[in-house]
Amino acid sequence: MYADHFSLNNLPFGIASSTAHPTRCVVTRLRNTVIFLDGLQGVVSLSKDLIATLRLPTVNKLAARPKYEHKLLREILIDVLGKKTPPELHTEDVSSVQMHLPVDAAGFTDFSCSMEHCLNAGEAIMKKRVLPPGFLHFPIGYTGRTSSLVVSGTPITRPNGHFKQKEEVVDGPTRQMDYELEVAAIIGKSSTLGEPISINDADDHIFGLVLINDWSARDIQGLEMSPLGPMNGKSFATTMSPWIVTLFALEPAEIPARPKDLPVSSYLRDNKQANTYDIKLEAELVTNESTTTICRSELKWMYWTVRDLVAHQTSNGCNLNTGDILATGTISGTVETSHGCLLELTKGGENDFALSDGDSRTYLQDGDMIRLTAHVSEGVGFGDCCGTLLPAIQRQKKL
Amino acid sequence: MYADHFSLNNLPFGIASSTAHPTRCVVTRLRNTVIFLDGLQGVVSLSKDLIATLRLPTVNKLAARPKYEHKLLREILIDVLGKKTPPELHTEDVSSVQMHLPVDAAGFTDFSCSMEHCLNAGEAIMKKRVLPPGFLHFPIGYTGRTSSLVVSGTPITRPNGHFKQKEEVVDGPTRQMDYELEVAAIIGKSSTLGEPISINDADDHIFGLVLINDWSARDIQGLEMSPLGPMNGKSFATTMSPWIVTLFALEPAEIPARPKDLPVSSYLRDNKQANTYDIKLEAELVTNESTTTICRSELKWMYWTVRDLVAHQTSNGCNLNTGDILATGTISGTVETSHGCLLELTKGGENDFALSDGDSRTYLQDGDMIRLTAHVSEGVGFGDCCGTLLPAIQRQKKL
Repeated sequence: MYADHFSLNNLPFGIASSTAHPTRCVVTRLRNTVIFLDGLQGVVSLSKDLIATLRLPTVNKLAARPKYEHKLLREILIDVLGKKTPPELHTEDVSSVQMHLPVDAAGFTDFSCSMEHCLNAGEAIMKKRVLPPGFLHFPIGYTGRTSSLVVSGTPITRPNGHFKQKEEVVDGPTRQMDYELEVAAIIGKSSTLGEPISINDADDHIFGLVLINDWSARDIQGLEMSPLGPMNGKSFATTMSPWIVTLFALEPAEIPARPKDLPVSSYLRDNKQANTYDIKLEAELVTNESTTTICRSELKWMYWTVRDLVAHQTSNGCNLNTGDILATGTISGTVETSHGCLLELTKGGENDFALSDGDSRTYLQDGDMIRLTAHVSEGVGFGDCCGTLLPAIQRQKKL
Repeated sequence: MYADHFSLNNLPFGIASSTAHPTRCVVTRLRNTVIFLDGLQGVVSLSKDLIATLRLPTVNKLAARPKYEHKLLREILIDVLGKKTPPELHTEDVSSVQMHLPVDAAGFTDFSCSMEHCLNAGEAIMKKRVLPPGFLHFPIGYTGRTSSLVVSGTPITRPNGHFKQKEEVVDGPTRQMDYELEVAAIIGKSSTLGEPISINDADDHIFGLVLINDWSARDIQGLEMSPLGPMNGKSFATTMSPWIVTLFALEPAEIPARPKDLPVSSYLRDNKQANTYDIKLEAELVTNESTTTICRSELKWMYWTVRDLVAHQTSNGCNLNTGDILATGTISGTVETSHGCLLELTKGGENDFALSDGDSRTYLQDGDMIRLTAHVSEGVGFGDCCGTLLPAIQRQKKL
């Protein structure tokens, strides 16, 4: 299934190392072969500055280069890798390679772009299908923590925190461990404080997209988020897929976003017709015994596009830095099979759902793995974004 | 008034450059003289690694060094600067020096530690003096944006955004521009993901304290913050004072925090008796015509201490990085002269307050400057934290 995510049509960027190539550097991938790009210097003539970015342990400097250089690099890679890969380029099967967090991100905004997610979450928590007051006017969101960003494959420790048990506030391991299926834009070109980015320049600032699992402890989040929003219920970990799929690879999948229900402010008026992408997403719950698909969703169902996010984030003068992450929030559709988190699927933990082996869940159990994946077009996909839940740390032992 | 903030008892750290010393490096200050520490190498014998951190354009690497090295450096500076300053050290009057943002911060959490601020804000917004549901159980907070952190003296542009006007949502320059008087801990020693920091080790991770003005556009914040918390109403700018006052300099001001109203969880049980600091804070509104003191407040009035913040932030396994900022939120007291923001002082813009020249304000006008300052003990203070409000950018021109 995954082989056709990484054809010559994709050529995403990531950061890898291996026993044979212990120094982290920028890599791309062709089917199951990881190509270390620090050897590209000897193969083709590219600007010295661009080549230098390929030897670094994050993609930040590469992402910050002008779009025409990204395009040139892509064309060269298609040319070079379309033939027999030259011996100057170290290559290895993906199974022997360690992927690392691709970006050094200081900024992370997690928006809430899905109308269905907002309505479903409202129903699960407050028994009311109402939208947040700002939802139809601008993309709402919260600032996320970046210190706990981890790459796919990193185990996730069940967090401790405070939550309500009946009417009492108690403190212990979360009992409502959830995932969130999301896509995020990785910022390439930075912007200047005080200078909003026009929505029509948004693509120029987006290096590419990744998958994000915004792990959420619903009980901890529920108690803490009034009125300042989620904090410890989410800040314990966020998982990112290792491969940044560039907007060039996504071009064939461009489609128009759903129409807006209300007229938008001038800064959100997008002249690009095909302003989102036809990306099909999936979430699986994997246990020792079984694999169960728990969500199939689509990016195009989102009310707000990633272009909207760039425009709104900077509309107050806030600047974006290279490596910043602007995530969509949970990507849900209208039917039960398209709920992008368990809060929605189980109506706040009230209803079980069945695993394929006959077992069931409301929220996640220790040992459960969540695997997110996304497919775009022929030979273009995101690979996957995985994390396995470990038991909580015992407070008594640590303190 | 400011001369006695920077005696030999203080010796804070900052980052500076000047025409005569164009390369940014770590500096300290004695009265009005800024001492560039990159020349310390020739003067005293210190470890090569420690000395190297003094030549860098942020204090991060210095802050990450072990506490005993910070102590040694402090003792050496007291010795060296207590005599005639050696010629190897470049010195300049503060008036000819440009101060820069001292840290490279990826993480910024703005807590809400003041019970009075929460009650007053609740009264101003909802006409109800009620605490947020989590307030008495743990320090509530939100993750802030770091891209728009600026050093004292940087002008602040009035942000645009959406807000309610009567019952309609409109979009334009904020009409409720506010400041927030805050103190923040700058993290020195980092921690590991999945490993909470014990409250009794908290000081070991705090390099020092600064002043913070968490500029807030109350109308934008008001519309957007349900349910995900503040975002564009605050992310346009946060001002930090340039001098990091170390915990060594604050030691003589250690005092016990106010007792907690409810028993706390084990991870918030602090064995240190004198677990906060006797710091007196002040906010002034400065116009072309007048200077008006609008708040006098004290750090010791806070319900939660900065030690509590370190423990709570990491209690779910979230890690801290060097340079991270943990801020107290608005520091308010019980009387009207101790309201640390205009939302409280004007009861949500309902009441004017008088400037010393007879003019009045509800929220800030373009051209107004807010100056925060704090005094600790004989010869120890924070200097000031200033920002002047510029008019909003016209959207039509930019887009």
